[in-house]
Amino acid sequence: MTLSHVKIVGSGLIGTSIGLGLSLKGVGVTMQDLDQRAENLANDLVQSSSDHPVDLVIFATPISALNSVLDREFASNPKSAFIDISSVKSKVKVDVSASKLPLQRFLPTHPMAGREVGGAESARADLFKGRPWIIDSAGVDEDVLLLASELIELLGAHQIDLDSAEHDKAVALVSHLPQLISSLLAKQLNGADESWLNLAGAGLRDSTRIASSDAKLWKEIVSANNQALTPLLVAFAEDLANLIQTLSDQNSIEKFISDGQRGRARIPGKHGGKAREYTYLPIVIEDKPGQLASLFDECASALVNVEDLTIEHSPGQFTGLITLALSASDAEKLSEHLKSRGWSVHSPRK
Amino acid sequence: MTLSHVKIVGSGLIGTSIGLGLSLKGVGVTMQDLDQRAENLANDLVQSSSDHPVDLVIFATPISALNSVLDREFASNPKSAFIDISSVKSKVKVDVSASKLPLQRFLPTHPMAGREVGGAESARADLFKGRPWIIDSAGVDEDVLLLASELIELLGAHQIDLDSAEHDKAVALVSHLPQLISSLLAKQLNGADESWLNLAGAGLRDSTRIASSDAKLWKEIVSANNQALTPLLVAFAEDLANLIQTLSDQNSIEKFISDGQRGRARIPGKHGGKAREYTYLPIVIEDKPGQLASLFDECASALVNVEDLTIEHSPGQFTGLITLALSASDAEKLSEHLKSRGWSVHSPRK
Repeated sequence: MTLSHVKIVGSGLIGTSIGLGLSLKGVGVTMQDLDQRAENLANDLVQSSSDHPVDLVIFATPISALNSVLDREFASNPKSAFIDISSVKSKVKVDVSASKLPLQRFLPTHPMAGREVGGAESARADLFKGRPWIIDSAGVDEDVLLLASELIELLGAHQIDLDSAEHDKAVALVSHLPQLISSLLAKQLNGADESWLNLAGAGLRDSTRIASSDAKLWKEIVSANNQALTPLLVAFAEDLANLIQTLSDQNSIEKFISDGQRGRARIPGKHGGKAREYTYLPIVIEDKPGQLASLFDECASALVNVEDLTIEHSPGQFTGLITLALSASDAEKLSEHLKSRGWSVHSPRK
Repeated sequence: MTLSHVKIVGSGLIGTSIGLGLSLKGVGVTMQDLDQRAENLANDLVQSSSDHPVDLVIFATPISALNSVLDREFASNPKSAFIDISSVKSKVKVDVSASKLPLQRFLPTHPMAGREVGGAESARADLFKGRPWIIDSAGVDEDVLLLASELIELLGAHQIDLDSAEHDKAVALVSHLPQLISSLLAKQLNGADESWLNLAGAGLRDSTRIASSDAKLWKEIVSANNQALTPLLVAFAEDLANLIQTLSDQNSIEKFISDGQRGRARIPGKHGGKAREYTYLPIVIEDKPGQLASLFDECASALVNVEDLTIEHSPGQFTGLITLALSASDAEKLSEHLKSRGWSVHSPRK
């Protein structure tokens, strides 16, 4: 069995990214959306069509819109397989149970990918590459599972089979709790004097970055997953109450910060899967056009691969600090190379 | 009055960075530390000496070690000016009041700079460039203020005069609260199934990054500033209790997330001072050495200045996404230039 024609209901970031990825692999794709502008844009981007009957329908709508399309899509495509992509799974199974779509024709899935920007215009064919894609296969027909597996493989993701209730608990911890805590922290800044905020450093910026996320998307996710979220928030509140009690006791605080270090160290690296160990090489450059080009010319001639980098400089300052992330051996090679060519390379750090 | 000989008591990250910066400017520097290894390393790095009497003593010790050195340093350098660099100020004034060092000879200061790594080996002469450096000038002798201002200017920082009690409230909000909340969040991961943590994305990583910070440093800061911190933690706890109560109400959640967005938007840009508005230009490149150099050659020939950038790619994938941060006009100019040269440039976003 091979995918020939996929209908994607919902032309936001995820739906359109799936459409782009499938179209590149030669699969026929039909994009649809309640919003005609989004549907047109998505179809223009995806540039695909098919005369085949639809063999897979993907629900890529907001969670709240799902139950309004289930019956209609099943009536139009009675032989098709069905999957969804929403970030909370138990609620979706309840919605499908209440519809005419039989549960064994529907596979709940969740691609663990996204961007801080939304909409068809932000879609990328490679959005799912190397990312986990959760499915909950229990009780689902074999042909539905095969089509979904083919889809996930075509998009370069790796499939993880996880019970919906366990999925919801896992994402409550690693995604929804951080979102709420980050929003709570950012909310505390509203009353503050502006001059205080001018003292903010990278710590505050990083710990509140996701507080910028979309409120309409998150109100749906939080309300759909409130059952898994509540005990996590209660446990957090208990730890917080305990912290407030022991704030003047240095031993308690040291243990508390150490507990946080241990928890933090459990998070794997940048792209899911195993953590990747980079070596960071700081280089001071002049802050003017042409310097970065020269630096990367040197990287190319040293045959090293730059995995990531950051730039730090202040306005009006004549130097900038570039930190390159490399493998340990590339960092050593590049450091020697750059020093021999007169660059201001500082000691690498892990 | 001009700085000729500065004695720095404490050879950690901050003390040694000050020493490096002053030495580069031709100021005589003596580094000292209880730990002989740290003192030797710092003096080797700083490479400076002076036969002049000490005109400024900088206390760069941990907060808890301060009161053990105050009397000794005042006895050795009775004509000198004195400053400290610790991140909590009210406690330091209490310590000095209880010592033989007269309060008018001592200026409480706090350079708002640091790194996630510590020690003399992590020191950088440019650590303070463009960063705020708080002083509390009330009641301090004019000659002490002049020497401190000269120091701050030599190191490229900008001086902000702020009452110690207000300073402590400000850093409690923008630095100490984020630290404790980030540690609390990371602590919640300790019991979790490892497979759940494999689903973690950038949101969890960013919001817990500072949970890796040093426990010994932070137990001192938290305990020294617990008076300013407690009301902030209590307010956070009240908001959290309220959130738990309203978790199933979509309107409340949407308002809550929006409140967080507003707070987040109040944080100024990367380097303190006013937020800078960048335009972000996404470009898909082949993931191989030489591509970044070519891209930055194009930036140089288009005469645009790249303010920041990120690289996103997955292992084994043949393309990477580079996002350049530029001024709006540079983004437009570069976008046109790159398109005309066949690069895969996507629509810029604010």
